[in-house]
Amino acid sequence: MNVLIVHAHYEQESFSSALMHCAVDVFESGGHEVQVSDLYKMNWNPVASASDFGEREHSEYCVYALEQRKACQAGTIARDIAGEIEKVKWCDLLIFNFPMFWCSAPAILKGWIDRVFVSGLFYGGTRFYDRGGMTGKRAMVTLTLGGRDHMFGKDAIHGELDVMLRHLVRGTLGYCGFEVLKPFAAYHVPYISDEERGVILDDYRIALRDIAARQSVDFPRLSDFDEAMRPLRPSV
Amino acid sequence: MNVLIVHAHYEQESFSSALMHCAVDVFESGGHEVQVSDLYKMNWNPVASASDFGEREHSEYCVYALEQRKACQAGTIARDIAGEIEKVKWCDLLIFNFPMFWCSAPAILKGWIDRVFVSGLFYGGTRFYDRGGMTGKRAMVTLTLGGRDHMFGKDAIHGELDVMLRHLVRGTLGYCGFEVLKPFAAYHVPYISDEERGVILDDYRIALRDIAARQSVDFPRLSDFDEAMRPLRPSV
Repeated sequence: MNVLIVHAHYEQESFSSALMHCAVDVFESGGHEVQVSDLYKMNWNPVASASDFGEREHSEYCVYALEQRKACQAGTIARDIAGEIEKVKWCDLLIFNFPMFWCSAPAILKGWIDRVFVSGLFYGGTRFYDRGGMTGKRAMVTLTLGGRDHMFGKDAIHGELDVMLRHLVRGTLGYCGFEVLKPFAAYHVPYISDEERGVILDDYRIALRDIAARQSVDFPRLSDFDEAMRPLRPSV
Repeated sequence: MNVLIVHAHYEQESFSSALMHCAVDVFESGGHEVQVSDLYKMNWNPVASASDFGEREHSEYCVYALEQRKACQAGTIARDIAGEIEKVKWCDLLIFNFPMFWCSAPAILKGWIDRVFVSGLFYGGTRFYDRGGMTGKRAMVTLTLGGRDHMFGKDAIHGELDVMLRHLVRGTLGYCGFEVLKPFAAYHVPYISDEERGVILDDYRIALRDIAARQSVDFPRLSDFDEAMRPLRPSV
């Protein structure tokens, strides 16, 4: 199995980084290949703009998704984007590893998605969810939070973590066709002891070793919708 | 009323930009003051990092939220962040105006939030939701989408737009104490006629003129939770 970890923490000694190193260790020990895109170390540019393309289809006005398609075909997309696309093509499992900022990924990772998940390859037209470009690959979100676990859930103050992360798990990864495994969340990280953090690392190690058994998130199937993406059977 | 519009589109001629100009026009015609943070024009740096702080409390390891609090008190936070904080303090209404990228804001706007919504001022400890730092101010999300309106909703293929945007509307703006008005969504923008886009601009103009009547989104009240943020009355 080929594993790509996209990591987004500015501190190399952070617990988020420890989770990344833990994953590298587990997968390499298991005989898998691992690549890490350490976005802060790479000084990744997260800003999608017209300068991501060489020669443009429309020089006077940039439609980002359109230029993505053309530039990928012509091989003129920015080199940093092209490199990351190759890594995603190569991988069987993609892991986003980050500290939760505002119930989402840090901007540097959001901008990796904005620029790398190109139209035409990852999705396009009616190619999304189970017809998305990344079907056959798995993905997972691994995040650290300041909040406690009881702050997330059905009656909890912030509601369900899965709902807060829906834009990422379903709207992004699921949309592109990835089979998305249940997120791994490390709660209350800045306030707990090294021993407690060690327990989380042990849990993570076990979860990754047994990743074939990890539950995945349900997404819509396009066969339940018509060509205009209206539901064939309204729910009762 | 003082209005701050944070705008995140790379094309000055985009429909997203047209919505921004429409809002400026409506509010200025109504006698209000408007400031626009046009993030692409400003070449805004969206990457939260240790270099956002002058002298650090802990030079060997950066805890971003902790350094935000200290740097705000000491007046040593990066100048670009300080300028945006002043604009938010000044405003009565904050509008995020952007094209939806991956069911969320473009990275350049995500990173505006990551860097500007500083700990201590916007939130801190148990100061969030109705006890957040921004109580008394209103906020609104105005977005353009490629998808059609029937693709969002209870039985729709992508589910409810409000759920996709929860990380932003509730997890970010609501968390900080803003009263958040229902988002204004312009659907199917790249595929419709200029006339249809004109209708959307008219709708937006009406919505903004009558903004006092616009419905706001419900968030939890902290008085329904104990000190550890556990619900006082579990739901039945």
